[in-house]
Amino acid sequence: MAQEHIFKQMDADLEEVRSRVLQMGGMVEEQITKSIEALTSGNLELADEVIANDHRVNALEMLIDGECTQIIARRQPTAGDLRLIMTVERAITDLERIGDKAEKIARMAKKIHGADRISVPRFSEIRHMSEMVLEMLRTALDAFARLDTTAAAQLKRQDVEVDDEFDAVLRHLITFMMEDPRMITTAIDILFAAKAVERVGDHAKNIAGYVVYMAKGKDVRHASMEEMEREIEQ
Amino acid sequence: MAQEHIFKQMDADLEEVRSRVLQMGGMVEEQITKSIEALTSGNLELADEVIANDHRVNALEMLIDGECTQIIARRQPTAGDLRLIMTVERAITDLERIGDKAEKIARMAKKIHGADRISVPRFSEIRHMSEMVLEMLRTALDAFARLDTTAAAQLKRQDVEVDDEFDAVLRHLITFMMEDPRMITTAIDILFAAKAVERVGDHAKNIAGYVVYMAKGKDVRHASMEEMEREIEQ
Repeated sequence: MAQEHIFKQMDADLEEVRSRVLQMGGMVEEQITKSIEALTSGNLELADEVIANDHRVNALEMLIDGECTQIIARRQPTAGDLRLIMTVERAITDLERIGDKAEKIARMAKKIHGADRISVPRFSEIRHMSEMVLEMLRTALDAFARLDTTAAAQLKRQDVEVDDEFDAVLRHLITFMMEDPRMITTAIDILFAAKAVERVGDHAKNIAGYVVYMAKGKDVRHASMEEMEREIEQ
Repeated sequence: MAQEHIFKQMDADLEEVRSRVLQMGGMVEEQITKSIEALTSGNLELADEVIANDHRVNALEMLIDGECTQIIARRQPTAGDLRLIMTVERAITDLERIGDKAEKIARMAKKIHGADRISVPRFSEIRHMSEMVLEMLRTALDAFARLDTTAAAQLKRQDVEVDDEFDAVLRHLITFMMEDPRMITTAIDILFAAKAVERVGDHAKNIAGYVVYMAKGKDVRHASMEEMEREIEQ
């Protein structure tokens, strides 16, 4: 009976952590959506909101991290439960970085629109890129929630598409700068914003990758440890 | 006696992991040093070497991660030992990212010098930035090795200096592009390389921060969990 109680408690703890991760995912998704809206529409109140809310993302990361550490210390999980916790630790690092990107995009929105600069191009492409990475983020969170290992391959493909889209934005910005060198400063700010959007895709891809690690489990990794040692010494 | 044996085994395991982290730190330091040399001198063999060696950094990260997971599963560490392992997990993520930056810098070196483009400016500033971040990395690894919590504040200050230096590089590159729009593509590549160097400083700062977390321990974090909940709900 005592043993059963411990298992149930562990399950409840893990469920709590998992739902917290999804809460954090929803939070950063909203932050990214708002920051893109601020960038493309010039709504700077929205940009301020994103910047003001970044600390909530960070606080949630620390809360989840604290919960994970406590579960390990109190319940001494092994095998699958432990892997879930390690996966959560990694996923929240990526989610926190996505939150940083939202703040970065919001700051660039303020710089670009706040300086009352001339009207700015290429937002349709950045908007398109943003839709791509937001879909990737939702796919990754969904894969995490359902322990779906098939999403990783899909996200790898989508990440290549996002990289291509970023290269297209870059080429256009370079043309734009060459045509009108007075726009170089603004174009560089847009470039940094586009880069931040592109990085969101990388983090989404990472999260889907951790799900594969979690599902495959210890044995697979263990088998490859000697292989890794050989690779390091090469 | 059996208990004592377990403690000794735990210490040996933790010592092994710690020395692996320092090995990984040395490896990425070398990768960054070489990539900067490739960038500033145009030695593209060195750039190829950095790119070819990135997989060794990744393999070492996976090896350490596997060792950490095994220690948790087998020895069920608590308190300080557990915090050390969580700190290692975080530190190796940052070290792996530093490795990625070295690869990025090496790729930019190939693009910039390989295209037989006109001679390129501002490398003295990037060289200076590189020296700053390499010193930060060494300080962070040293702090990790000696569990020195005072380094974090120092690295925060140095990181601000590096950010300022990056802004100076950016301003110069913008001037450079305005003076000769044909150099825009090259200048953007240099900008990406400089950005990668700047990010190394961020990762070094992160690592020193984890050491503080490790030393302060669970109680401090635990005390602040309710505070964090309040912050999230705001």
